[in-house]
Amino acid sequence: MDPLPLLQNLIRCPSVTPADAGAMAVLEAALEPLGFTFTRLRFGEIENLFARRGSEGPHLCFAGHTDVVPPGDLGGWTADPFGADVRDGVVYGRGATDMKGGVAAWIAAIASLPRDLPGSLSLLITGDEEGPATDGTVKVLEWMQANGQIPDMCVVGEPTSKAVLGDTIKIGRRGSMNVAIAIHGVQGHTAYPQRADNPIHRLVRVLHTLTATPLDQGSEWFEATTLQVSSFDVGNPATNVIPPVARARLNIRFNDLHSSVSLTRHIRDVLEEEGARYELDVSCSGESFLTQPGAFVAALQAATRQAAGVEPKLDTGGGTSDARFIARYCPVAELGAVGATMHKSDESTPVEELRALSRLYAAVIAALLPARAFA
Amino acid sequence: MDPLPLLQNLIRCPSVTPADAGAMAVLEAALEPLGFTFTRLRFGEIENLFARRGSEGPHLCFAGHTDVVPPGDLGGWTADPFGADVRDGVVYGRGATDMKGGVAAWIAAIASLPRDLPGSLSLLITGDEEGPATDGTVKVLEWMQANGQIPDMCVVGEPTSKAVLGDTIKIGRRGSMNVAIAIHGVQGHTAYPQRADNPIHRLVRVLHTLTATPLDQGSEWFEATTLQVSSFDVGNPATNVIPPVARARLNIRFNDLHSSVSLTRHIRDVLEEEGARYELDVSCSGESFLTQPGAFVAALQAATRQAAGVEPKLDTGGGTSDARFIARYCPVAELGAVGATMHKSDESTPVEELRALSRLYAAVIAALLPARAFA
Repeated sequence: MDPLPLLQNLIRCPSVTPADAGAMAVLEAALEPLGFTFTRLRFGEIENLFARRGSEGPHLCFAGHTDVVPPGDLGGWTADPFGADVRDGVVYGRGATDMKGGVAAWIAAIASLPRDLPGSLSLLITGDEEGPATDGTVKVLEWMQANGQIPDMCVVGEPTSKAVLGDTIKIGRRGSMNVAIAIHGVQGHTAYPQRADNPIHRLVRVLHTLTATPLDQGSEWFEATTLQVSSFDVGNPATNVIPPVARARLNIRFNDLHSSVSLTRHIRDVLEEEGARYELDVSCSGESFLTQPGAFVAALQAATRQAAGVEPKLDTGGGTSDARFIARYCPVAELGAVGATMHKSDESTPVEELRALSRLYAAVIAALLPARAFA
Repeated sequence: MDPLPLLQNLIRCPSVTPADAGAMAVLEAALEPLGFTFTRLRFGEIENLFARRGSEGPHLCFAGHTDVVPPGDLGGWTADPFGADVRDGVVYGRGATDMKGGVAAWIAAIASLPRDLPGSLSLLITGDEEGPATDGTVKVLEWMQANGQIPDMCVVGEPTSKAVLGDTIKIGRRGSMNVAIAIHGVQGHTAYPQRADNPIHRLVRVLHTLTATPLDQGSEWFEATTLQVSSFDVGNPATNVIPPVARARLNIRFNDLHSSVSLTRHIRDVLEEEGARYELDVSCSGESFLTQPGAFVAALQAATRQAAGVEPKLDTGGGTSDARFIARYCPVAELGAVGATMHKSDESTPVEELRALSRLYAAVIAALLPARAFA
């Protein structure tokens, strides 16, 4: 089965997050002849789809999304973002790489394999990956757990490849958290600081402590945790006045040596040590996670080596993806197309690369579905 | 001679800075019968007056001003700010203490003393003390130098007394400077700080170095130098962006161990050590100065002890005054009324205290004018 027509059908659904625009129905039409049964899961305004074939273990799940980011300025496009035109062997359209292409390639891979594979296959497809991600993968996983559908392992079809198809497999991601700190002092005249309490001096001390030494030197699979102060604001127009309050904001990208809880405790300790009245506001958009390399990752590597002819590098870099939610339930890794054009104008994928991705996915499925025990 | 009528005549001139409103003419009318010759010095829109009697040394100058700050909200006054009414033995009006009262008391003191004092007396009266202070004392001193009129010593009639007349003689003032620092980095994504250069982290390091240790522990006559960060501003709304520039402002009140030049060099050294591109903007509104206690100050103390019956404390606190300009030319000290109501509503001075100040000034003149050598 050629993945191109399926990808074109998907691109022609203008499923700009949170719209579905018929994308799930396209998938159902493709999966039905392959023997899958579906459950449409609507949470809020979001369409999600869980499809499964077979009931035995091992259970391999593919996770992806059909929602896309907006096309942006149409003047930057030389093709219709929802036209799926092929020009010089390249198919153009929003989602061509991120990640309608991955979804189409996986389904075509299933179609190219015999029906009597051991174990079972499922697909977790959401329409809320590019949006707030609250009514998508998180809720589908809760439903899967409640219904005994948690897989033994999961491949996420995000475009992880950097230069050549298959060169990168993501086995984890750093966590990310935003921190807002306000330190209160006592306003006064700069000429008489002994009668005031300068909150800027206190916040400088706190931030100096937090930034003077790295939080770690990286771990086996992760680069070092980074803590960056993104703003420091007082807004005091009077040169002879000590202001009453000073504020700063931090962004922390953290590896598997930390959690948002341990980092919050660390910051709170520094603030308590300073001894001033403070406010601390923390929001974590994703904890760090790691799928420890073992049989599952080794099988993915071997299949990639064989089908794509490259030695895949295990990586934990980049931003966040829905894999962070799946990691709470089972081993998960991300493997997909070259992501060079994702979110850009003229998002596109060479048709031959799409077909190569489908062959790679077929090798992955064949490697993972022989009954093995995966941690 | 009673200083009250002269003070009332001065208060009735609404000489809100930079207006003269007839104040200098009132002084000329009072000084003329005492044998003084005058030079009116108009710089820009400012009226200034230099008056002298005698040409021999030692030459004792009295420095003061006739301009006043605006009355402010008239609702806060129970008297006409320019009415000079006496109620229950207290004379009310803008300038009653700061410092038309001092000027009137000094002239009345001269009138109460014999004409044949040794040496000579002069008055340096400006109309630009409460304003920008650019067309007042500074320029009169330049004129005095060009015309061979620099005195051997100078008393400034600012209201220095704290609780009781004569309790404080100011022999110096701290300097004050404002510093603006901008540090430039390289903008980037908070997730990839190795590709950026966070100017906030650099500025935090610089300010930590500048504030971690006091610049000094005070000197013989001064309290410690204070360095206060008055603002720190980035204004970056994006939590995932490292901003290109960070700015801070500092106010430094410094004693005689420093100058604006030495402090600028210190800050520049710290910035150079940090190694980033920076901008440094320094404005000094006054260098520190000190009249070392010696014969001049001792004579002032003795006269105060004798005439006011209190032991005057030598002090260098508070803001700035025109004494900082005079200190470049000759020994200068400040001695005057209780300043409790200066710049406030219902500025006022008890008539008996005004008369006591005039007697104190007479004792000061008598103590200083016997031919002595003053350093």
